[in-house]
Formats: sequence, C-alpha cells, structure tokens
Amino acid sequence: MTKPYVRLDKDNAAVLLVDHQAGLLSLVRDIDPDKFKNNVLALADMATYFKLPTILTTSFEQGPNGPLVPELKAQFPDAPYIARPGNINAWDNEEFVAAVKATGKRQLIIAGVVTEVCVAFPALSAIEEGFDVFVITDASGTFNEITRHAAWERMTQAGVQLMTWFGAACELHRDWRNDIEGLGTLFSNHIPDYRNLMTSYATLTQGK
Amino acid sequence: MTKPYVRLDKDNAAVLLVDHQAGLLSLVRDIDPDKFKNNVLALADMATYFKLPTILTTSFEQGPNGPLVPELKAQFPDAPYIARPGNINAWDNEEFVAAVKATGKRQLIIAGVVTEVCVAFPALSAIEEGFDVFVITDASGTFNEITRHAAWERMTQAGVQLMTWFGAACELHRDWRNDIEGLGTLFSNHIPDYRNLMTSYATLTQGK
Amino acid sequence: MTKPYVRLDKDNAAVLLVDHQAGLLSLVRDIDPDKFKNNVLALADMATYFKLPTILTTSFEQGPNGPLVPELKAQFPDAPYIARPGNINAWDNEEFVAAVKATGKRQLIIAGVVTEVCVAFPALSAIEEGFDVFVITDASGTFNEITRHAAWERMTQAGVQLMTWFGAACELHRDWRNDIEGLGTLFSNHIPDYRNLMTSYATLTQGK
Amino acid sequence: MTKPYVRLDKDNAAVLLVDHQAGLLSLVRDIDPDKFKNNVLALADMATYFKLPTILTTSFEQGPNGPLVPELKAQFPDAPYIARPGNINAWDNEEFVAAVKATGKRQLIIAGVVTEVCVAFPALSAIEEGFDVFVITDASGTFNEITRHAAWERMTQAGVQLMTWFGAACELHRDWRNDIEGLGTLFSNHIPDYRNLMTSYATLTQGK
Amino acid sequence: MTKPYVRLDKDNAAVLLVDHQAGLLSLVRDIDPDKFKNNVLALADMATYFKLPTILTTSFEQGPNGPLVPELKAQFPDAPYIARPGNINAWDNEEFVAAVKATGKRQLIIAGVVTEVCVAFPALSAIEEGFDVFVITDASGTFNEITRHAAWERMTQAGVQLMTWFGAACELHRDWRNDIEGLGTLFSNHIPDYRNLMTSYATLTQGK
Amino acid sequence: MTKPYVRLDKDNAAVLLVDHQAGLLSLVRDIDPDKFKNNVLALADMATYFKLPTILTTSFEQGPNGPLVPELKAQFPDAPYIARPGNINAWDNEEFVAAVKATGKRQLIIAGVVTEVCVAFPALSAIEEGFDVFVITDASGTFNEITRHAAWERMTQAGVQLMTWFGAACELHRDWRNDIEGLGTLFSNHIPDYRNLMTSYATLTQGK
Amino acid sequence: MTKPYVRLDKDNAAVLLVDHQAGLLSLVRDIDPDKFKNNVLALADMATYFKLPTILTTSFEQGPNGPLVPELKAQFPDAPYIARPGNINAWDNEEFVAAVKATGKRQLIIAGVVTEVCVAFPALSAIEEGFDVFVITDASGTFNEITRHAAWERMTQAGVQLMTWFGAACELHRDWRNDIEGLGTLFSNHIPDYRNLMTSYATLTQGK
Amino acid sequence: MTKPYVRLDKDNAAVLLVDHQAGLLSLVRDIDPDKFKNNVLALADMATYFKLPTILTTSFEQGPNGPLVPELKAQFPDAPYIARPGNINAWDNEEFVAAVKATGKRQLIIAGVVTEVCVAFPALSAIEEGFDVFVITDASGTFNEITRHAAWERMTQAGVQLMTWFGAACELHRDWRNDIEGLGTLFSNHIPDYRNLMTSYATLTQGK
Repeated sequence: MTKPYVRLDKDNAAVLLVDHQAGLLSLVRDIDPDKFKNNVLALADMATYFKLPTILTTSFEQGPNGPLVPELKAQFPDAPYIARPGNINAWDNEEFVAAVKATGKRQLIIAGVVTEVCVAFPALSAIEEGFDVFVITDASGTFNEITRHAAWERMTQAGVQLMTWFGAACELHRDWRNDIEGLGTLFSNHIPDYRNLMTSYATLTQGK
Repeated sequence: MTKPYVRLDKDNAAVLLVDHQAGLLSLVRDIDPDKFKNNVLALADMATYFKLPTILTTSFEQGPNGPLVPELKAQFPDAPYIARPGNINAWDNEEFVAAVKATGKRQLIIAGVVTEVCVAFPALSAIEEGFDVFVITDASGTFNEITRHAAWERMTQAGVQLMTWFGAACELHRDWRNDIEGLGTLFSNHIPDYRNLMTSYATLTQGK
Repeated sequence: MTKPYVRLDKDNAAVLLVDHQAGLLSLVRDIDPDKFKNNVLALADMATYFKLPTILTTSFEQGPNGPLVPELKAQFPDAPYIARPGNINAWDNEEFVAAVKATGKRQLIIAGVVTEVCVAFPALSAIEEGFDVFVITDASGTFNEITRHAAWERMTQAGVQLMTWFGAACELHRDWRNDIEGLGTLFSNHIPDYRNLMTSYATLTQGK
Repeated sequence: MTKPYVRLDKDNAAVLLVDHQAGLLSLVRDIDPDKFKNNVLALADMATYFKLPTILTTSFEQGPNGPLVPELKAQFPDAPYIARPGNINAWDNEEFVAAVKATGKRQLIIAGVVTEVCVAFPALSAIEEGFDVFVITDASGTFNEITRHAAWERMTQAGVQLMTWFGAACELHRDWRNDIEGLGTLFSNHIPDYRNLMTSYATLTQGK
Repeated sequence: MTKPYVRLDKDNAAVLLVDHQAGLLSLVRDIDPDKFKNNVLALADMATYFKLPTILTTSFEQGPNGPLVPELKAQFPDAPYIARPGNINAWDNEEFVAAVKATGKRQLIIAGVVTEVCVAFPALSAIEEGFDVFVITDASGTFNEITRHAAWERMTQAGVQLMTWFGAACELHRDWRNDIEGLGTLFSNHIPDYRNLMTSYATLTQGK
Repeated sequence: MTKPYVRLDKDNAAVLLVDHQAGLLSLVRDIDPDKFKNNVLALADMATYFKLPTILTTSFEQGPNGPLVPELKAQFPDAPYIARPGNINAWDNEEFVAAVKATGKRQLIIAGVVTEVCVAFPALSAIEEGFDVFVITDASGTFNEITRHAAWERMTQAGVQLMTWFGAACELHRDWRNDIEGLGTLFSNHIPDYRNLMTSYATLTQGK
Repeated sequence: MTKPYVRLDKDNAAVLLVDHQAGLLSLVRDIDPDKFKNNVLALADMATYFKLPTILTTSFEQGPNGPLVPELKAQFPDAPYIARPGNINAWDNEEFVAAVKATGKRQLIIAGVVTEVCVAFPALSAIEEGFDVFVITDASGTFNEITRHAAWERMTQAGVQLMTWFGAACELHRDWRNDIEGLGTLFSNHIPDYRNLMTSYATLTQGK
Repeated sequence: MTKPYVRLDKDNAAVLLVDHQAGLLSLVRDIDPDKFKNNVLALADMATYFKLPTILTTSFEQGPNGPLVPELKAQFPDAPYIARPGNINAWDNEEFVAAVKATGKRQLIIAGVVTEVCVAFPALSAIEEGFDVFVITDASGTFNEITRHAAWERMTQAGVQLMTWFGAACELHRDWRNDIEGLGTLFSNHIPDYRNLMTSYATLTQGK
C-alpha cells in the first residue's frame, strides 16, 4: 500500500525558473540577498551541469518588475524564454505549458519569486495535470516567514515535494563516481564551507 | 486520483472579516502592529477591488473587546454586519451563516482575530458544510508563534488552504491584462517595496 | 466525504495533566518559565471552571523528577492522582487508563512535561484506542524548538488536534452568554492584555 | 561635574532627512518595510507638527538610487532640497551645510538611509562642529543588525544621542496640555496600538 | 582615580513607578506580557519588602492611557500618587519632584512605560540634579528592541546604571542572613525556576 | 480504521548512523556544534545501552568529507562499517542494505549529516521497502532552518516518524523499573539540567 | 594620553568561579545548557592548564541553590573553597577577599551564575579596589538576554573587560610555540569544530 | 573640547587581513557563510580599488588552521604576507609590525577570524601605539553573538571605531564624482540589491 518513493531522475526532469526579475527580487525578505543570489545561481549551475532542459519565464518585464537577472539570461541562451504578457500563473500561458510538455519530462523542478504566487500557482497546476513537482525552497523567495510557511503548507497539502538545490543535486547525481570533479566543482562554487574543506584537503594532499 | 486544484475564483468567493476589534487587537503579538494593520487594510482593499461580497462580524462590541476598527466599518457601509451577542464561533450565529449563504458563493476567504478561535472555528465549521476555505494568514493574528502554529496545523489537517492577501489577490486576478492600473494601485498602497519600484519606474519612463 | 469537525464538548471532555513536576520543569526551555507557569495554571483553572474531570499523574516523584507542583495538587484535591511507579507512557499504567475510562468521556485534553514523551506517548496510545485527543500545546513544554516541532509532527500525523488553553476554553464555552463573568475572570487572571482591557473598560463605564 | 541633560527644544531644533530614495530603500533590511515606511512618515509628520525647519537631501537621484520618495517631496514643498551631485557625506556639500546653518538651530535631528553612511557621516561631522545631534534610529535603516549595531557604537562614541521618533516627539512637546488633539492625532496616525486605545475610549465616552 | 562603586543601599533608595497604566501597557512589545506583568509586580514586592519609599505617577489617566494597574494602586495605598495633568517628563512636575525630594533618598530606582520616554526623561533629569539613578530594565517596557536599545544607550551615556529587579533585590539585601525567609518568598513568588528548587528542597528535607 | 501506533521496540530496532564525518560536520549550521556533538554521542550511547544493532556508514572518507568522527568508530568497534565508494543514498549500496537486513529488525532509527540527503534519502528508500522509519532529528544536522524544514516535510509526507534521542530512549525503555540506574546515567551524561537534578537529589538524600 | 592595553598575563592572573551550583544553574536561560556546561568546563581546564590560582565559592549550598557542580570540586581539590554563609556579593566575605589577595595577582578572571549578581557584584567591588577585572561572558549565565545585556552595560561602564574563555586562553598563551599540544588539546576538548579540523588533519598527515 | 572626527582617508590607510584561513573559517558562526565570504571578498576588492597597502598574515598554516583562502592570496600577489610561526596576536610578530609601519599609514583597517582574538588583539595593540583603528565588523567572524558582542565592547572601550566594508568604502571615496563606474562596480559585485537597482536602471535608460 506504500506509494513508491518518487525520486528525481536526471533523464526525466526539467527546470522551471519563474520570475527571478531584478525588480521583484527587492520583495524577497525571507532569505538574505547574498544567500538567495547564491542559491539561485547554484540551481542554474545544477541545471546546466545535469543538462536538464530549462525554461525561463518572466512577468511584465517592461514594467516595475524589471528584467530577468542577466546571469540567468546569459547562462541559458538557448532555453525557451517566455515573457508572459500578463498571466500571473505561468501555467495559464499556453506557450509556457507547451514548452514544458515539449521537454517530454514528467518531473518538474520549480523555483521562483515570490513563493506563494509565481512558484505555488504553477506547482499546483502541474500537480493537477499529473506531473511530479519538486519545489526548490531555497531558490524561491518571498516577503517573510509567515508567507513562506503558508505557501509551503498549501503546496505540501497538494503533494508537492519540498527540496533544496543541494538535495536535488545529490538526488540527481546518485553516485559520486559518475563524476567526482564535476559535482565537487558545483559544491565548491556555491558552498563556502565545502570549498574550505576542499582547499585544506588539496593543500595537504597535493601541496597546492 | 489527483484532487483538482481548488483555485480562488472572483465570481465564487466571499470575504469574512471576523472580530478585528480595537480591544482584541491588543492581543495580537505574532505580527507587528504596523504590518498587521497594513495587511488587514490590504485585504479589505482587495475585497473592494474584486467586488467580493464581504461580511463583517464582531463579538461583544460593547464590552472590553471594543468596537470594530473604524476603517473597516467605513469601507463596507453596506456589508452585512453581524454584531454577535455571544457566540464565539461566528458559524454558531444563524444570522451570520444566513448572510454567508445569501452570497451564493462556495469559496470563503476568512481572516480575523484571534487566529485559533475567531478564524479557526468558523473555518472548520465551513469546511464541514462543504465550503472551500481559504484563510488569509497575514491578516489574522494571535498571541504568539506557538498559538499560530497550532492553529495552522489544526486547520490544514481539516483541509483549509492557507494563503496571504497578496497570494489571494494574484489568484483572483489571474492576468495583469484584466486591469494593470487597478492591481498596481492595490500593491502600491500596501507593499512599500513595490511602491518604490513603481516610483523609480515612473520617474525614469515618464519623468514624474 | 468530509470528516465531521470534532469539536470540544464540555460534557464529553476530560483533562489529563501529566508530569508537571518541580524537577522536570527545569528541562522546559521552549517556553519562558513565567509564561509556561501561567499557561499551566490557566489550563487548570479552565478545567475547574468547566468542571471537567481531571486526572493527575506523575513519574517517580521520590527521585530527581521532584514532586507535582503544589498548585496543581491543591487545586484538584479530589482528582485521581496516579503516581506511576515507573511507566514512562502513562497509558501503560493500568490504574491511569482505568481512571480515564471511568470518566466516561471520549475527548481527552492532554498537557504535560516533556512534550515528546509524557504528552506524545499517551496521546498516541489514546488515539489508537479511539479517543479524540486534543493536546494543549502551550501548557506542554520541552527542551527546545526542534524537539517540540518533531513531537508536533508525530502527533498530527496520528490525528491529534493541537490547541492552546485559550482556544480550548473558547471552544468549550461556545457562547459568552452562558456566563460572561466566569469566562471573563478566567481570561483576566491569565491574559494580562485582556485584564488591561477590562480594567480600562470598567473604569470608564463603572467609574471603578 | 555632571554635564547638563541636553534636551530637545522645539525652538532650537531642525530636521535633516537624508537619502530616503526609492532605490536605496531596497537596501534597508534591518527594519520591516511596512514599519520603516510608517516611521519615516511619522518623523515627517512630527517635523511638520512642531514646525521644525526641515532639510531634504538626496544622492544621485538620476541614477539607480532613485528619486526621493514622493510623500516627503509633497510634504515639504518649501523645504531646502539639496540634490547632491556626488558628495556621500551630506556635510561635505556646502549648500547643505549652509542650509543647516541658515536655520539658526543648534540641535539637529537626523534620519536617513543607510544608517552607517548617510546618517553617521553627517552626524559625526555635525558633532565635530559643535551641534547637538539626535539620530532617529527607527527612521534610519541599513543592511542588517550587524551594520546597525556598528553604526550606533561609532555614533555614540562620538556623543550622538540615539532616539526614536516617538521619544523625540514627546521630548519636543513637553506637556500634553500644549495641545492634546494635535499630539494625539500624530500618535493615532502612526501607532496602531495607540489608535486602538483612542477608538475604544471615544466609543465609550462619546458614543462614537 | 577609580570612581567608587555606587551600590544600592536600602537606607538611601526610593522607587519611582512611572505610568504603568492599563492602556499604555498595550504599547509594550519588547517583553512578553506574562513576563512583564510578573517583573513589575516583583519590583513592587521588592519595594514593599525593603520598605523603600515608593512614588506612583501617571499620565492622563482619564484618557486613552487608562488607569494605573489596580495591583499597584492596592499595594501602595499610602504612597504619594501624582496623577500628572500633562507633563510628559515626570520630573517637570513640581509635585513629583517634591515627593522625590521629601524621601530624603539619593538613589532612585526607576521603572515605567515606555522606556525611552517615561523612564528615560526623568532618569536623565535626576542624573542632572546629582541623584544616582538605577533603571530597572525588565520592569520597563517599550515598542520593540530598537527602541529599547536606543533608550539604553542614551541613558548609559548619561551615567544611568541599568539593573533588573532581581539584581536590585540582591544588592539591597546584601546578606541572606538578614532574612532568609523574606527574600526566599520574594524569589519564590516571582521566579518559577527558583520556586521549583524550593519545592523540591522542601519535599526532600521536610517531607512537605 | 485507526492505524495502530507504531512504537519503538528495543527487540525490533536497529540504528543507522550515516556520514557523521569530520569534514561534513562543518556544514551543519542548524544546531550549535556543542549541542549537536552531545546529541550524536547521546544517540550512540542509547544504541549501546539498549544493545541495538548499529550500522556505520560514510561517504568518501578519503576526500574532503573527512573521516568518521573517532568517537563513533571507537564506540562501535564491531559494528558493520560501510565506507561507501560513491553512492550518495546509502540505500543504493548493496552492502549497506544487506547489513540492515541482516539485523532482522523492521524498525530503523536513522540519523546523519546532512538531513535532506544522507538521512532523507535512505529514510525514503526504507519506507518504500516497508520498514518503519524513525528519524532522530536532533542528531541529524544540515545547512539552516529552511533546509531542515523542507527535509522534514518531505519525510513526514512519506510516513517517517520524527523523534529525538531522548524521546526514542524513553519509548525504548518503557518503564524506569527495567533499570533505573542505566537510564539515569544516560540522561545524566547528556542532559546537563537532568544531571543537576540528580546532583542536588543525591546531595540531599545521600549526603554526597 | 592613551591608556596602555591591559593584557592578560598568566603570571599575574587568578580565576574566581562564583556560584556554579546545581540548583542555580536551572536559572540560566540565556545560553543553552549543553553549551554553557562546555564553556564552564573549558574555563576550568584553561585555569588548570595555565596553572592559574583558582578560587571556588558558593552561596548557601545547603539550601535550594544546591551544591557546587561536582566536576569543579573534583578539578580543583586544593583550591580555596569559600562556602559563603550568606553574603550575596562574594567580595563582602572577608575570607574570600583574603584568598584573592593571597594569590598576589592583580588580574582577576571572573565567571559565575547569575551574571548580574554573582559576577557583577564582585567584579565591581574588585575594580573599585584597583584590580583589573576580566569577566568571562560565556561561562557566566543568567535569566535572559535583557538581564545579560543590562549586566554587561553596568560592568563595562565601570571598566570591566568582557572576554570569552577562548579569547582569554589565547591572550594568556601568547604564542603557540610555548606549547602546541597543550593548547591544541584544550581547544579540541571544548570546540567541536576545532576538533574536527584536527581529526581531518591528523588523518591526512599521519594516517590516523 | 570636541575630539575631531577621525575619518578614513585613502591616502593614510592600510588594510590588515588576519587569519582568513580555510580551517579557521569553519569556526565562524555569527555570520552565514555565503554572506561572510561575500563580505571578505568585498573588503579585498575595496582595498584593491582604493590601492590601499594591504598586509596578509596567517597563523599556523601548515596545521589544522589551514591555508589562507586562495582568493585572497591571488588578489594580493605582491602584498607582504606574514605566515606567523606562532604569535597569536599578530602585533607580537616583529615582521608584521614592521610591514605595517613600512606603509607609513596611521589608519589601520582590520578584519579577521576570529573577532575576539585575531582582530581584537592587534587592534588593541595598535591603538596603544597611537594608530587609529577601524575594525570591519562584517568581514570579521567568530563563534556566536555573545562572543562578538563581548569583543566589540572591549574594542570600543579602547577607542576602536567599528565599521563595515560598505561604510568604509563610502568614507574613503568621499564623492561619487571621483569615479562613478568604479565604485558602482564594487557595489554591484557585492550587494545583490544594488546590482538589481543598476540592472533595472540600465534596462530602462540604455535598453540593455
């Protein structure tokens, strides 16, 4: 009677980055900005490293919400990029849903700003259509802890799995032996404590 | 087997504001007073903006609980206003339930003071009668975080969806193109960070 | 398909106070001592006020755990008092279970020290035997927030309803008109903010 | 040997509002935005109420720092307004210092964004020139608590007096009898808890 | 060159309780209400126990600030009670200063609501007149931590000594042998952890 | 229809200690290091005390993750010790699963570093294979509270029971009379508050 | 005009451990018990390591305050041990002051429970007599952060230097070359993060 | 009688980076690692940008403290680099002091790990020799808030000025017109909120 453990599979997962825009980011106050920026870029590097199809979308770039942060634009030059003309829930945008479905993947890894809207709405819509949804909590930001907590409750009630970029990377990789250097570099670039461990280790073992 | 995503629908939703009274507000200590006042007024403006039927109710206004805050009274002069003579759970008051049913709506958006009583009790009663219930967490206040957390657990166990006024406004609006100015004004009036984005944007694009 | 809302009923509820002992109380660090003491005595006054059958139990009073706090002993001189010779889960003690069953009530209101043991264990056992269980979270204490949070998750998974003494009192009372003075006194004695409201109100209306 | 208590005097005080600009405000993360906006507007209302000469200044309005928030511009249409072309410390701007000196006041009430730069620099410069300086801590914001704490230590070392808008208003007013209604209105507009007290009081005593 | 340690002396100290009024107490949010009430009553009991001359004063009792909390009125029926007609700084009231001077004491123990006004203003004035001032920090409350911290800095700059009711009681008592039972009772009534120690001790040593 | 209460049973439980390595421990920032070290050693002592079969496993000991902390190696010299060559989820390692199954136990008590990976992955895998899984939350650590909270949600969704070492010890022991001294020693060594109670008790009753 | 930097000197320093008693420790709530116990034992080990004369004192051991914690008694079997019959300020006890003076040291390192009484009182008295006083903040505990903060302000006003056991150990040691192993052992035993660094280092360089 | 405001002067300041080593960084727990890394690199970029003479020093690189973080080594290839053989206080190392004096600067900007030792010791020594000392608080880290707070008190008592990297950069630059692009780049690289402002601004004004 136990439901099987739905595990991220790098051959069956796509990444949706929703509304990480220069203006909207000023609304994020449940995670410190240095840390949040690092988490978003870590998730982007994870998507690149595992060659996961990635979809970018924004809401009203021309207005106060501001443009997509340039780092993401630069990192995914060939990704589908849906600048939504007005739909708040990205899943209400046919072009976006088409892009998602075109990936052929059934596991969706979602992050965005702000959590209870730009993340939760498409997450709930995708669940309803039978996708497995994994929300990257630490690359999604919102106004405060009450807002985040409420959004998490609503999403878990519906069956969303809450993860972090580090947990997702580990679950996708499965085994260090698949590529020690690649995963190590991802961690070194985004986890200062891990980088320090690697620095000390390298110094002692390789004299560098 | 997936339960459909129950989404707020502006043609099927009513707002219940429960016991935002001048005396009872001194009990609210899980949200700062400046922020809480702003959230309650934002919810009221949201109800007005989307023309949602709104019901006001209070408990024992003549006693120490104090009168309904005057801003709400002024904003909804024609709303049903049930000054309950004694029922703690508003749903135990027939006049209140009749007013709710008279709206003909099946989605109830509830906020009030204090969360574990004035909000949770009618929320649980309404769920039992088959309504979809959305509690606006940041326009509902209580004694402290333990109390809030306990109330949230009890309500989510029963199927209540936890939201915030911003999330609710976004889910009701669906698409910015329905009215950019109206939603923008709502946000500008109640989200200082968003107002600042709009100010900078207007200055640069319109020279004002 | 909706499960009926299980509501506290003063004719069907009993209170179990588990291991509020002078020594064990020094372990409680997730709630400040002034506040915790107040909450426990508020719960006791609530039990007295609603004439709920109340059962006291302790673990190893003769050893370092120390005696039951004298206030509880004094307040319930005729209550069953089971000084357990060794059972950690009070429900493993036949005399305790017999006392619970002798009340004839199906709703159990439980509080104690420490939350994840003295409260959670009998709560889970009682649920298993078909009782409705309501844990008074703010009259139950433990080592820290991690411990509390873990205990709450385990109990809600099993169907325990989390409440607070104030929420329980309101749900038991149903209607202020049943006795305004009695409930007001209970609140005045244990909620300083409410007492202040009453003081100001009395001064203005009765000149006292 | 005791230094006389330097007390704010409404006939000898001027207010300096430094760099409350729409862009820079997104840097303020040591106070919540709702509360911070309220504090800044309260300080402005205090300056207006006591008819204190007020000076506005900004840094680089045309660039990303953004324009002065429109509320302040509107409230002080006739105040000296020094849009500094580049000086970070406002006191390095001759026009600004001239405006300060033109007020003829020896007590300077300063607030701004961010605390350790736009507030601390002119505060330290003014102290050096013999002014008495009062920094309004809750209408000044910065990146985080470490930054705030460090700025406070540096300023108090130099003799700055740390105050809040409420404390300053009380010290300027001296006696409620000077104008009960005026001070009451200021408090009612910016302290929700006080507004609630006034609402309850008015209802009971005047039936409104 | 070392300044002598100014130590509280029960023969040379008076207690000033400033504006602990039912309405104003709703403004106190830097200490939890249960704990704050306990601290204020502990300070009152300390004053009574050491027979320190005590002076009560209030600001605008007839208005929204509300009456002095009845516990203090009852505990000091014969104390000078100055209901100030309008002076915000109690030291601006001649009757109050006369009452202070009439005690003949040079050490003033001050507590009140709110810290940066009702406590800080008379504290600074008293320092200026050569009194030694001891502010009881935990029986004085205000809006939030920023406000408290700013008030503390201003007062310590001027030479105020910051204490707590417990520290003051210990410094006044000097030696347990002066009266073990009396001091023990004071602690037992206001420090739950200490009461528990006494309960366990009494049980083991006296079988009660 | 109630699911029976799954209770830890010392004859049916095994302990899995996953990746408590000297390097990885520097990543743990959701629990203070002093406290975390104490919790891990308490869990180890609990396993020893109840003679629970215990399995040690590590990930990449030769690299920056560092060696298993020496205390655990020393305490379980005969335990199966699986130094995984690369599998991130210990359950993907056949040798590890074989060791678990060789214990013949159906209840698995799991703790490790970091929570959302080294603990959550094998916990979810074990649940899928029908084991009852109990995660010891306070002997498992991770980057921050967001990470921990997300991991807990994912695990409880799947049916994991969250516990603490103290709760687990109490549930395993069942009755103090089974061995007062043994359990008391375990608590005394790892709960300073409990040790203090025992010290005071021993002094008063045994003069030592 | 600069006052010389008063630096701890191992040939001129004594350690005073004041009232670390089993009962009083239950009052300490500004530092977690695991961490506090570790800090006190670290300070004791530091005193032993640097062979600093150490003086133990307690207040009312026979009563509820409880006995000195046995670890300290065992570690300093030959130290002067003054069980004060009643003086709250240890400096009021002639035997204690005589013991301090008998050490011939002018630098006093003080820690104790609770900070604002048992530490602050003798610290202030010793300053007055011309000693240099260094309070070890993290081996001194009290009720809460307000209490600690107030005590720190009073002590720094008087010239006390606030330190931690780690800072004191480093200042006493001056140069690692004086004894690498000894200092390393002290740190390894009381700083889990440092122990982990040493474990990883030893494994890589010595294969152990 | 006012002491002149000692203001950072880019022609008279040197930067001392003390013990930012890969191992020691694992001890820093009063600032999150992402943020701390960013602050340290921001300070380094500030030193480079203003061409301030910079001195690197480390303690025991060959042991568990680990090597200087490679980013600093790479950024200052020609800076004096004093690998101290054992002195804990860098100022006890003659080579270090000689390097400091060789810069000819009288203002020292110091940051390091850990605050109460590696920063506070040389800061106090430098003050004693008549330097003006500015500690960069947010690029200095330590065990926890108690440790940080104690170190700050000791340093401010001695006359150290506490600053942050952002405050220091602003005070050194004096006027944006000296180089808008350079300072803007420094901020954009290390303050995500500022970078977002610049991104939005550039998009609106330059279409990029």
